[in-house]
Amino acid sequence: MVVDRLYESVKQKGVVCVGLDTDISYVPEEMAKAASTPGEAVFLFNKAIVDATADVSGCYKVQIAYYESLGLDGMLAYKKTLAYLREKGLIAIADIKRGDIAKTAEMYAKGHFEGDFEADFVTLAPYMGMDSVTPYLPYFKEKNKGCFILVRTSNPGSRDFQYLTTSSGKTIYDTVGAAVQALGQDYMGSCGFSSIGAVIGGTTSEEAETIRREMDKTFFLIPGYGAQGGKAEDIARYLVHGNGGVVNSSRAVLLAYKKHGGTFDEAARAEVLRMRKEIEDACKLLEK
Amino acid sequence: MVVDRLYESVKQKGVVCVGLDTDISYVPEEMAKAASTPGEAVFLFNKAIVDATADVSGCYKVQIAYYESLGLDGMLAYKKTLAYLREKGLIAIADIKRGDIAKTAEMYAKGHFEGDFEADFVTLAPYMGMDSVTPYLPYFKEKNKGCFILVRTSNPGSRDFQYLTTSSGKTIYDTVGAAVQALGQDYMGSCGFSSIGAVIGGTTSEEAETIRREMDKTFFLIPGYGAQGGKAEDIARYLVHGNGGVVNSSRAVLLAYKKHGGTFDEAARAEVLRMRKEIEDACKLLEK
Repeated sequence: MVVDRLYESVKQKGVVCVGLDTDISYVPEEMAKAASTPGEAVFLFNKAIVDATADVSGCYKVQIAYYESLGLDGMLAYKKTLAYLREKGLIAIADIKRGDIAKTAEMYAKGHFEGDFEADFVTLAPYMGMDSVTPYLPYFKEKNKGCFILVRTSNPGSRDFQYLTTSSGKTIYDTVGAAVQALGQDYMGSCGFSSIGAVIGGTTSEEAETIRREMDKTFFLIPGYGAQGGKAEDIARYLVHGNGGVVNSSRAVLLAYKKHGGTFDEAARAEVLRMRKEIEDACKLLEK
Repeated sequence: MVVDRLYESVKQKGVVCVGLDTDISYVPEEMAKAASTPGEAVFLFNKAIVDATADVSGCYKVQIAYYESLGLDGMLAYKKTLAYLREKGLIAIADIKRGDIAKTAEMYAKGHFEGDFEADFVTLAPYMGMDSVTPYLPYFKEKNKGCFILVRTSNPGSRDFQYLTTSSGKTIYDTVGAAVQALGQDYMGSCGFSSIGAVIGGTTSEEAETIRREMDKTFFLIPGYGAQGGKAEDIARYLVHGNGGVVNSSRAVLLAYKKHGGTFDEAARAEVLRMRKEIEDACKLLEK
């Protein structure tokens, strides 16, 4: 089960998930100028970030929107970034938030678990229902793949629908969370978590204990740290002894050089180390 | 407003939206063999379908999952298909069902309203909330673009979350529908509908009158006709005098030649004409 691989990686290298949400404007001018295309500049930047952080990051998340925005050239950079992560034996989460059914979902599964755009995990959106997840399932056991399903995000708009209470007294995100945890039972790793994970926004600690308790078998992908305002003490509540989740940071890592100076790759590494320690300390404090 | 263009097109050419969800297995063997790559085969097939149906179809929907499944080669076919539709002055809906926030959504908007993958409309998923739609809005007025937001789908899994009743007594899909219609007020075309449309599954007529009445300013994209089981008499209830919506059919059109014989493009045209008449007749019957 791929979740065991992720769990081990977090144990060895920490909870930080480096988000390769690479806007062309993040790439230092000289590097961008030397590259043949914007996509190539993005790929070379990603490669250097990966080289500088591979031993201190639990995994990588590649946000496909940034690559789609550059058209075919961007999709080539996307392919090359995933291939480089695979070549280095690192874990890649394709942040695609797809959500569709039947044959269409089969096509997405094929697209993102095989061929040019192969990743280890994909993120999925649940609005269409749990049958939008079914077509991915065969890959979890047969090809060692997994997913993270959107449960509770932390943007202001999450209040629009996710926080609505149903007639049974549960919120929509609780209802989705319960469905995710239930489906995950058949895809349990030996680490105690399932290859069917959940995206849980980390900018608030609201009901963190409840969510963690009710979804005790679910590995979390936690976005929102850093640029989006998530604090280490909030995030620690979603982890279990510093594991059972990965904490994504994109801009704060990729743009660390603009804030702290130095070369972009060294600054990124320093930021990953700083963030890892901050979260580790918060976890220790919480367990006291 | 792009919705006026769509409304006019439906008036002139009918409500059928041809879904270019082209699996490589749909392409006749000879055509597939002659093409240099699977993506090229898919594009040549699409081109012939478009040529055969351009004067009798209101618009085209391109399901990106089928192209992502072929990797870079598929994405080139996606680009070429959209470029061909644009070249012929036809309306393209990019069925991408993206749903993300802030900078990520901006990137998707850039990716699908400009450059290689430019389309006229995109489909969006609402789970993260209405701020996942905001980044697309500037394109609606400035670049004559629009969107269709998932409201109620018709797969079995739609019952999982969309049909849940909130404490205010409304279903989730009603709540999303109301938000879509409200946001659409600022993007009204002169045809009486908004450039912010909704995806409403057409395989059931359940509450059709209510949905149509409550979302009276919203243009519908109605999937589910044909292969998925939607009947003309159900679908007619979501239209307003035969307009205000487009009815998608993919497999039934693309694979008409396997069922009825003949060349694939002529069979596709015949199926579009058959379907158009069936829906027109159902609309007339309903208005009696």
